[in-house]
Amino acid sequence: MTLQVNGERLWSSLMEMARIGGTEKGGCNRQALTDKDKQGRALFIRWCEEIGCTLRVDEMGNLFLRKAGRDNSLPPVLTGSHLDTQPTGGKFDGVYGVLAGLEVLRTLHDANIETLHPLEVAVWTNEEGARFSPAMVGSGVWSGEFSLDYGWSRKDKSGVSIKEELERHGYLGATPCAPFNIKAALELHIEQGPILEAIEKPIGVVQGVQGMRWYDLVITGQPVHAGPTPMEQRRDPMKAIAKIVSELYHLAEETGPLARATFGDINASPGSRNTVPEQVTLTVDLRHPDQQVLDNMDAAFRRIAQDICNQCKVEHSIVDEWNSPAVAFNASCIDAVRFAAEQAGLPYEEMFSGAGHDSVYVSKVAPTSMIFIPCENGISHNEAENATPEDITAGCQVLLGAMVQLANAE
Amino acid sequence: MTLQVNGERLWSSLMEMARIGGTEKGGCNRQALTDKDKQGRALFIRWCEEIGCTLRVDEMGNLFLRKAGRDNSLPPVLTGSHLDTQPTGGKFDGVYGVLAGLEVLRTLHDANIETLHPLEVAVWTNEEGARFSPAMVGSGVWSGEFSLDYGWSRKDKSGVSIKEELERHGYLGATPCAPFNIKAALELHIEQGPILEAIEKPIGVVQGVQGMRWYDLVITGQPVHAGPTPMEQRRDPMKAIAKIVSELYHLAEETGPLARATFGDINASPGSRNTVPEQVTLTVDLRHPDQQVLDNMDAAFRRIAQDICNQCKVEHSIVDEWNSPAVAFNASCIDAVRFAAEQAGLPYEEMFSGAGHDSVYVSKVAPTSMIFIPCENGISHNEAENATPEDITAGCQVLLGAMVQLANAE
Repeated sequence: MTLQVNGERLWSSLMEMARIGGTEKGGCNRQALTDKDKQGRALFIRWCEEIGCTLRVDEMGNLFLRKAGRDNSLPPVLTGSHLDTQPTGGKFDGVYGVLAGLEVLRTLHDANIETLHPLEVAVWTNEEGARFSPAMVGSGVWSGEFSLDYGWSRKDKSGVSIKEELERHGYLGATPCAPFNIKAALELHIEQGPILEAIEKPIGVVQGVQGMRWYDLVITGQPVHAGPTPMEQRRDPMKAIAKIVSELYHLAEETGPLARATFGDINASPGSRNTVPEQVTLTVDLRHPDQQVLDNMDAAFRRIAQDICNQCKVEHSIVDEWNSPAVAFNASCIDAVRFAAEQAGLPYEEMFSGAGHDSVYVSKVAPTSMIFIPCENGISHNEAENATPEDITAGCQVLLGAMVQLANAE
Repeated sequence: MTLQVNGERLWSSLMEMARIGGTEKGGCNRQALTDKDKQGRALFIRWCEEIGCTLRVDEMGNLFLRKAGRDNSLPPVLTGSHLDTQPTGGKFDGVYGVLAGLEVLRTLHDANIETLHPLEVAVWTNEEGARFSPAMVGSGVWSGEFSLDYGWSRKDKSGVSIKEELERHGYLGATPCAPFNIKAALELHIEQGPILEAIEKPIGVVQGVQGMRWYDLVITGQPVHAGPTPMEQRRDPMKAIAKIVSELYHLAEETGPLARATFGDINASPGSRNTVPEQVTLTVDLRHPDQQVLDNMDAAFRRIAQDICNQCKVEHSIVDEWNSPAVAFNASCIDAVRFAAEQAGLPYEEMFSGAGHDSVYVSKVAPTSMIFIPCENGISHNEAENATPEDITAGCQVLLGAMVQLANAE
């Protein structure tokens, strides 16, 4: 009989945590480093200390709760996520990864099992970016993406800085905010997307994070009346847009099954049915989990837009709205998750994350991967965010299996 | 020395008429059958009667001012247009065609010239359609397009009918509102488009009116996140729209130099950059001066949309917004205009009208054509509507030449 997590205990911990900052609509408002966030952290620390864990707090207020292993000179297997929420957030985003980590420790504690490597559950500060911008600042400083001064100096709308709030709450820890040696890092999270629900599988074995590039393609031509001007004399942005969209579809299809090209919004100006538009703006979203391939798609997009706009005698500009590089997770971590799902008899899907997570930064300095479970209608960052108790338990069971496996390997 | 119109007199008549309903911004508000419209009609009638013209008023209040010919048993050569304006209209749309007709009569009167056929200047009631819908109702009833009861029963927003206003102003005439025998009908008008100004020619020899069809193409697919869903599983309206626009461009180009396809507006819903749109609506404007060719374009459009939407696995509907059949003007009238322009040494362009005019209805029952002059920036239905005194004079000179030519021919 394999070791089983206690799904009911996990669920009731989630519901108890959700009452701190709980909203009327059943969501949660527990923004980073507010009094509510302090309450939530304190509850979590108490739960960990009840089973003998020890706490480290670093200079960014990131928490590391450690369950000792048989050889504590070995690097820990880490899990965790964040306890802060959006202002009208849900009960699962982030907190599920933290409390599932706790449930893993509790299960091992109840069974008197010590792993070879120590285990740690991390709580990263200000993942959401709702109170302090940017998002994922705690894991970002820790990984070296941002400097400590940058992290400390982030201010909320009222001008209060992260450092001031860390001092006020007693979370400006002595531990340097810097990478330490980690055996493996796993993050369990609701998918925040529709795939797992659609295919009715409880587990996503996350291979990495899609690289994403967002653009506004702005094409400017000549607004002329629909009647008089012959077609060959027109400088029509719609003609160019149509060709570019078709070419980018072709590009995505020939790039392979993991490439994505999405055109979510388009606007024509002046937008009169009997006038050739002066300007058409199209949003372009290109994605691929392999950064080199995404870079090639980016270059092809620029070349296609240039060529077609030349042909059509229109002007164009490409506004770079966002550029989120691709992340490939660690193969051993991915294997451990896959194996744990198989051991637990849980159907799983190999997939990529479409959203940013603390694991993106953690993966820069430690072997990392993620586990997803379905969430209702793919909805997140919303008080209606929901997941089933069965999936909540299943995800935690896979986390347990993977952590134990990684923590017992030499 | 050929007979010359008096451009200064015509210009000052235009400016005097423009003061009736004149707006602060230099435009004109003289809507159909208002007190201002009555004032304008009275001024015009007085001017005509001063040079010996006789007046007929028909049951729709259409005015016919007649200058006798040498043989008054012959059908008249008709010109004219309308005196009513948009609420924020200009000084030239319609009124130029009426007062240029007056200037032709004045020029002949001053020179003591009688043409073989009599000449008439018509003022058509409610061309603009601004106060009473539909537009061109006076010429429409006259030509048999609408019944007299229909015309009389049109009401403005306050519930007042055309018949009531005709009775109040004394313009419910005894003459039946029905076609009479006409030798030729010419209408001189500002172009209300940009062509003549762009090519710097003062005269448009109008061959007919483009047939126009307006559609809304509504394509419905499946809204999915930009990240997860593979390209080949998407049902993406943008993919279909792009192919359809390119195909319709191809259709217009292969149909020949007179075909037009315009896509003036497009909207995506929900319009989120990282979601495949659920629905995209595109306006489509197809035009050709030959009705049979336009009908073929219509059929091809429907076939293209159906085929591509099938390929892309999206639903579509085509909403018919407007259907204005093509009109071909009379060859003898066109020839007379061209000849008059050549005689006057004025550069001209053979062209089609892209807008509706009283001549569309008149042409159903009488040999008809039109003459265009440039207007500033192609702007009309606007207080900023403008034309140069030189072009105003040139157009009237061509009208004089064409009318005299037609009215002296057996």
